[in-house]
Amino acid sequence: MNDETSDPGYLPDKEALINRMRRISGQVGGIERMIAEERYCIDVLTQISAVQAALDRVAVGLLDDHVKHCVMGAGEANRDEKRDEMMAAVSRLIRS
Amino acid sequence: MNDETSDPGYLPDKEALINRMRRISGQVGGIERMIAEERYCIDVLTQISAVQAALDRVAVGLLDDHVKHCVMGAGEANRDEKRDEMMAAVSRLIRS
Amino acid sequence: MNDETSDPGYLPDKEALINRMRRISGQVGGIERMIAEERYCIDVLTQISAVQAALDRVAVGLLDDHVKHCVMGAGEANRDEKRDEMMAAVSRLIRS
Amino acid sequence: MNDETSDPGYLPDKEALINRMRRISGQVGGIERMIAEERYCIDVLTQISAVQAALDRVAVGLLDDHVKHCVMGAGEANRDEKRDEMMAAVSRLIRS
Repeated sequence: MNDETSDPGYLPDKEALINRMRRISGQVGGIERMIAEERYCIDVLTQISAVQAALDRVAVGLLDDHVKHCVMGAGEANRDEKRDEMMAAVSRLIRS
Repeated sequence: MNDETSDPGYLPDKEALINRMRRISGQVGGIERMIAEERYCIDVLTQISAVQAALDRVAVGLLDDHVKHCVMGAGEANRDEKRDEMMAAVSRLIRS
Repeated sequence: MNDETSDPGYLPDKEALINRMRRISGQVGGIERMIAEERYCIDVLTQISAVQAALDRVAVGLLDDHVKHCVMGAGEANRDEKRDEMMAAVSRLIRS
Repeated sequence: MNDETSDPGYLPDKEALINRMRRISGQVGGIERMIAEERYCIDVLTQISAVQAALDRVAVGLLDDHVKHCVMGAGEANRDEKRDEMMAAVSRLIRS
């Protein structure tokens, strides 16, 4: 967050996650163009589903890092808070 | 985006959909930056959930146009095909 | 599908759907027992995911019948209403 | 449900979860009857969405207990295994 990686163990898959987000950016741009060109709706919907699945995978990757580094490593004092935060994030991802 | 529109009735919300995709592009770029800056995982996950919800709304909008223009307007000959295509797209969106 | 079926073409997969719902009832009862017996959480979650997927398939089946019999067959007068209803149901299933 | 509970701290919301599963059983039975009576598809779909949401809430409750008692409390030796298991369950719930 300052020297870039204050904690070398934090977000070990950072480069991989950034690369995945770049690919997702490209896919989102592609969907915009498909709509502009009035491509067949069903093909656009297929691309939207692909982006959703890619975002789910990034979310699961981030959550995994979070559990490893923040929740499991949390001191007694703020373990419950960390767990509540994580469960709220899971709820949103599940869309419950 | 206008002259090339063969069918003026097709995709009536086209401009609105393109604008929404642009906003989604911006949000996806923002998520990439958050990961690069190692922002707090939970905040990144919140943004991912927001993009997923925005993509769901675009998908529902496209599907609605599709039902109106392609499925309901389909001739007897290819109604079943159009319906099957649409249901396959719905299945993918539901992730079933 | 017997005497009470006013429209013989309606819900052609009725028996299959009822059988699927019975299997889902059995699975739900099984999950209740797993919780009562304090079975391992992860195994219970696996069963919940299986029920969700089974319900998604029933929903897609119902929606397909609905599009075939109610939306496509709707008269000019209430086509828009039928379509809106259907899209609202799809939105709820997508959880958008 | 009481004497057989080896660990009194395990699944503290057990009774609440069982009650929720019973309500879900009732809802699933209701959906079966709605299909048998050929009730309007859209109303059946609304009930299916309600059951899905109720199951999601049970899943989040179970997952929360799991993180509290199994993941956070896991010894060094099997922490990674517990975390992997949990993330696989989250993935299935997200349907990614």
